Amino acid sequence: MQKPSLPSGTRDFGPEVYQKRKSIMNVMERVFKLHGFVGIETPALENLATLQGKYGDEGDQLLFKVLNSGEYLTKVNPESLDNINYAELTPQIASRGLRYDLTVPLARFVVMNRSTLSFPFKRFQMQPVWRADRPQKGRYREFWQCDVDIVGANHLLSEAELVEMYIDVFTSLDLGVEVKINHRKVLDSFLPLAGSQDAWNSFMQAIDKFDKIGREGVSNELDQRGLTHMKSAWGMWCDLAEIDNFQGIINGLSSIEVIQNEHLQQGIVALKELWGLVGGFPQVKLDLRLARGLSYYTGCVFEVVTNDSRLPKDFKIGSIGGGGRYDNLTGIFGLKDVSGVGVSFGLDRIFDTLEILNSGAIQKEESGVIICPMLVEAETVAFNMARELRKQGIVVEVYPGSVKLKKQLDYANSTRQRFALILGDSELRNGTVSIKDLKNGSQEEISQDSILNFLQNA
Amino acid sequence: MQKPSLPSGTRDFGPEVYQKRKSIMNVMERVFKLHGFVGIETPALENLATLQGKYGDEGDQLLFKVLNSGEYLTKVNPESLDNINYAELTPQIASRGLRYDLTVPLARFVVMNRSTLSFPFKRFQMQPVWRADRPQKGRYREFWQCDVDIVGANHLLSEAELVEMYIDVFTSLDLGVEVKINHRKVLDSFLPLAGSQDAWNSFMQAIDKFDKIGREGVSNELDQRGLTHMKSAWGMWCDLAEIDNFQGIINGLSSIEVIQNEHLQQGIVALKELWGLVGGFPQVKLDLRLARGLSYYTGCVFEVVTNDSRLPKDFKIGSIGGGGRYDNLTGIFGLKDVSGVGVSFGLDRIFDTLEILNSGAIQKEESGVIICPMLVEAETVAFNMARELRKQGIVVEVYPGSVKLKKQLDYANSTRQRFALILGDSELRNGTVSIKDLKNGSQEEISQDSILNFLQNA
Repeated sequence: MQKPSLPSGTRDFGPEVYQKRKSIMNVMERVFKLHGFVGIETPALENLATLQGKYGDEGDQLLFKVLNSGEYLTKVNPESLDNINYAELTPQIASRGLRYDLTVPLARFVVMNRSTLSFPFKRFQMQPVWRADRPQKGRYREFWQCDVDIVGANHLLSEAELVEMYIDVFTSLDLGVEVKINHRKVLDSFLPLAGSQDAWNSFMQAIDKFDKIGREGVSNELDQRGLTHMKSAWGMWCDLAEIDNFQGIINGLSSIEVIQNEHLQQGIVALKELWGLVGGFPQVKLDLRLARGLSYYTGCVFEVVTNDSRLPKDFKIGSIGGGGRYDNLTGIFGLKDVSGVGVSFGLDRIFDTLEILNSGAIQKEESGVIICPMLVEAETVAFNMARELRKQGIVVEVYPGSVKLKKQLDYANSTRQRFALILGDSELRNGTVSIKDLKNGSQEEISQDSILNFLQNA
Repeated sequence: MQKPSLPSGTRDFGPEVYQKRKSIMNVMERVFKLHGFVGIETPALENLATLQGKYGDEGDQLLFKVLNSGEYLTKVNPESLDNINYAELTPQIASRGLRYDLTVPLARFVVMNRSTLSFPFKRFQMQPVWRADRPQKGRYREFWQCDVDIVGANHLLSEAELVEMYIDVFTSLDLGVEVKINHRKVLDSFLPLAGSQDAWNSFMQAIDKFDKIGREGVSNELDQRGLTHMKSAWGMWCDLAEIDNFQGIINGLSSIEVIQNEHLQQGIVALKELWGLVGGFPQVKLDLRLARGLSYYTGCVFEVVTNDSRLPKDFKIGSIGGGGRYDNLTGIFGLKDVSGVGVSFGLDRIFDTLEILNSGAIQKEESGVIICPMLVEAETVAFNMARELRKQGIVVEVYPGSVKLKKQLDYANSTRQRFALILGDSELRNGTVSIKDLKNGSQEEISQDSILNFLQNA
């Protein structure tokens, strides 16, 4: 008999983890809906034509491809099999793949439904995605993304709303965070200084490592990349970034002569407008070193990191959210000039962080009631009693069958029930029930009429 | 530029459908949790070894198989390619597949986690499954199942609880239903009469068509199957089934001499016990013609059909739920003697039925508020006003940008907002807001201080 196992990089979510993850998603959904966002879901299966070429060469490699049904080799060109050419063969035997992210499906959805959607289209989507990555700690092949996007509007009120939603979600989850903002155009202002587009791209790649390797690390990296001429710029950059107030940073930027260009001006105007809306939140910080998603973001960029004093000093989990403004979401499917802005919530990392804090925001409390019938005649009484209590919103189980009390109480304790209502022979005769408090072990006998009152005041 | 499309048999769930489906699932989850059930989720990707051989030959054909990553032909035995033998080749290039139902994953989960789970394990699970079926109206390749099972207990209180949950869910959804019950052993009592196991199986397959072809249809089918000797039994069977009270049917069964055997006795004892618990619900009906899942159910069987007088006469949708007791759930993975009982809710069909009823249980009401800034200076006021209202639980959007009022109101109407709060030049100067009722078009100007009061009393 086979011993069952899970595919590498996939997970079961058992009852406790399911409940906690659900609590986090419920908080998100409540905040999204308060802001008038609507949910959509797209299928796990997409045509490979929809997915391929959207995530770069590496992404194409990581797509899970689904074998065509039936005799999938019948229509294959025999030459593809003789001299195996995967680029030719694979599309002939697999025409569908698994969703790789929620952004390309959103673009496809918007294009396919553009005549019936109201724009700006404010959508949230929380679904699993699949990547044939090498599994490692904290990286899975099947994992969840929680995305919020505003499509078809280009106004900084949208950026402000997303920042506000980050703050509302993490406040509700009682998790201290820092929401970093930056603007692509401020980064772009360094382009002339770098000397060439290639040099600038390389500079940005180096900056992007700041979180991992620090100021000195980036500096060394610049030497290695033949960007020694950018080291002084990086130094000024970091000095500015360490200024602890928005206006100081903006003033500093305006004082660096070599980057005074149209890019910088546009970036500063946008950041000032955004700051006017969200600068009052203590969690929000302008961080010039934030350089994410440069291949697709065109305006503001965001990143959320944990910043909770209760977390252990050596706790490192990277960003728990991020996003930005993109000017051409649907261009890949032929619909031009649709601007959008969106952010993601990193559900797995948020969950891991709240677990380390043993956060009350996601803990299950002992709250249920179990009715324990001690003899066959008590079963119907228990069944009906449970039904009445549930009508009042009380979570009630009836142990299925009048087995030994110890077995019933073991089950009650392991499922974290709060009270056991024991129905034995004498209780049946007296119209009572023995209520056992499973936290402190105390027990008392009360009339069946007063159970509801007891539980509501417990 | 490619025109994007969806794979055949898959669907997007747009905002309205998403919200309605979610409402249905929320009702289910609330009822499940009131009964102390816990949720789990299993991965979409399972090892093909877990799935294959569990759903019969046809099921194996319908499994979606996922192509291995990288150069998947490297390890393939060349002979499998020369004389194409799919049974040999496919397992070499695809080691994983997509979840086909929620029952086999449940069995795998229970076996893998048996040392940490509390039994009886009462779990619900609501996730999509995939079948490479021929798509047709109402049948999808990617669709959702909602399953509730009680694993590791064998007592009719569990069956009663599941029946009760059916009633609670459909009552909450305001949908009239009939919950049919029957018992496998009652059906088995006909085995001696059929003459052989094969004849009996054939008889049961004929009975299973009753819903579609009716009493006479089954009768003709029996002739065609060479079961003419079973026609009189079928006649008696139907006569009994049409008796409109439980005790009458039981008495009738006891009066048919040829089926008085141990099977019948066990079946009747179980049905009487179950009836003692749930016979008081007017929706519950013993239906002897119910013969479902006979290859795996071993005790009680259930089926739910719509029975709502508001539905059109020609509305046919089949069963919207079903289930039963199985004695050997985990045997396929080497864990013997684990009895379980479970039911499914047919989410797609329930949704379709409620749509036809235009059911208030899943309709979105106009409820939101949109703030319309008419000039740049109003944007910050709007942003902050929205924030304060959301703190009181009011769903609020700010239109992103002070564009023309008509455009803002078009958006408000198409997204079913209830009120528009207009902030123009004079409103800003006066500390007021113009509130437009989007249902009746009326408009009045009130002070900004009294907005909350207005909305809470609207």
